Amino acid sequence: MRKTEPGMTPFWDYIGMKETKIEEAHAELRLDITPELHQRRGSVHGGVLATLIDGAVGSAVRSVLSEEEISPTVELKINYIRPAHGEYLVAKSKLYHRGKSLAFGQAEIFDSNGDLVAVGTGTFMILNTK
Amino acid sequence: MRKTEPGMTPFWDYIGMKETKIEEAHAELRLDITPELHQRRGSVHGGVLATLIDGAVGSAVRSVLSEEEISPTVELKINYIRPAHGEYLVAKSKLYHRGKSLAFGQAEIFDSNGDLVAVGTGTFMILNTK
Amino acid sequence: MRKTEPGMTPFWDYIGMKETKIEEAHAELRLDITPELHQRRGSVHGGVLATLIDGAVGSAVRSVLSEEEISPTVELKINYIRPAHGEYLVAKSKLYHRGKSLAFGQAEIFDSNGDLVAVGTGTFMILNTK
Amino acid sequence: MRKTEPGMTPFWDYIGMKETKIEEAHAELRLDITPELHQRRGSVHGGVLATLIDGAVGSAVRSVLSEEEISPTVELKINYIRPAHGEYLVAKSKLYHRGKSLAFGQAEIFDSNGDLVAVGTGTFMILNTK
Repeated sequence: MRKTEPGMTPFWDYIGMKETKIEEAHAELRLDITPELHQRRGSVHGGVLATLIDGAVGSAVRSVLSEEEISPTVELKINYIRPAHGEYLVAKSKLYHRGKSLAFGQAEIFDSNGDLVAVGTGTFMILNTK
Repeated sequence: MRKTEPGMTPFWDYIGMKETKIEEAHAELRLDITPELHQRRGSVHGGVLATLIDGAVGSAVRSVLSEEEISPTVELKINYIRPAHGEYLVAKSKLYHRGKSLAFGQAEIFDSNGDLVAVGTGTFMILNTK
Repeated sequence: MRKTEPGMTPFWDYIGMKETKIEEAHAELRLDITPELHQRRGSVHGGVLATLIDGAVGSAVRSVLSEEEISPTVELKINYIRPAHGEYLVAKSKLYHRGKSLAFGQAEIFDSNGDLVAVGTGTFMILNTK
Repeated sequence: MRKTEPGMTPFWDYIGMKETKIEEAHAELRLDITPELHQRRGSVHGGVLATLIDGAVGSAVRSVLSEEEISPTVELKINYIRPAHGEYLVAKSKLYHRGKSLAFGQAEIFDSNGDLVAVGTGTFMILNTK
């Protein structure tokens, strides 16, 4: 199983995003909410939530790839349900489909009260680097 | 015209995103590419590009709002065209529609060579805070 | 519970789409596959699948509305997983959120073998006609 | 240039959708509004508009393909701006990008008064059938 560790993805480290679970076709990411991540009205910026969706679905995709395969994002879609406040956010993802050249999955983001704050999907291309 | 200045949106400042132009229903944002913004393969992380799309369309929406109106993002969609490298990125947005309670716009992101790296759209809710 | 019956939505009738189940925040639609619904290579046209997603999520939204409320579609997103063949299609939807002015849900489409052919989401506006 | 003629796509014929212009990376489709295409409140069903977006972007994609290449839809996104009424609809599309295995484009739908009723995008896979 291909894990994402601190030091591997600079932007994940910069905003404090961590992969906390990785299983076949599923992943979980966690992000502590700090003031730098706020938008103008004091909740977490939508771009941070988009980064969590991309990261969580991307981890679920990588969980089924070999070491030689990479998977850049093709497209990302996020629906924002309620403002994200509190201590931390958790994103839980699942893979819907892994084809020969594309993979598609979904992720849900919950706040530290367990309320759903956003839902998103992503399509990723599977490329062999060998 | 409602401008976004440094100090107003913590996450914009944290990643170095600036509103460089704002006109009726149009906006332009700029972001200098720094190593913290990279994904694992050395180009700009897709979450940063999503933040640029959200910000650029959001600025175009705010350009037609009154001081009492706010506009949280309802949904965001991004298509990634090519890896984003180089010195800086520019996002150019236009508003497609401003209704009574919703606004919808589009943004394109170009790298410092003028190549298109991503295209996205966003729907925003218009709320009166008075 | 607000049901959709034959005769209420001309385009549903024209393509043979039926609401077969409606519960609080959930719905199920069925469509028999006929040759008129094909695209050029003999599977069901993507526009038909989009109609099923819109219809299934729309039914889940209507399940929580009062008689005076209507809910036009704001935006729709579909990911196509595999070509849709066989006897019939079933779309199963769930509502993710019902706010004051917007509702958001998801639907999955299965073919008569039980294989997933498409996944989609929709945002709907809630308007009071009184 | 690969044209779409009546008789090639059953569902286009069934709803009366026609390709009226095809140029390098651009296409135009037309649909006469008939009562079968209505949703419950008497405007054109959102699934019909989704079919127009898919068709218009798909034609723009095919305009740059060889005879051996086919291009199934990967994902489709539509934003509905206003109810579609009147005599006919016109969809105008442009290709944003044609890569080795994917193509991405956008389409706008106008009613017979020239008002914008919907905007959408689509990603298509490019497959060689030889």
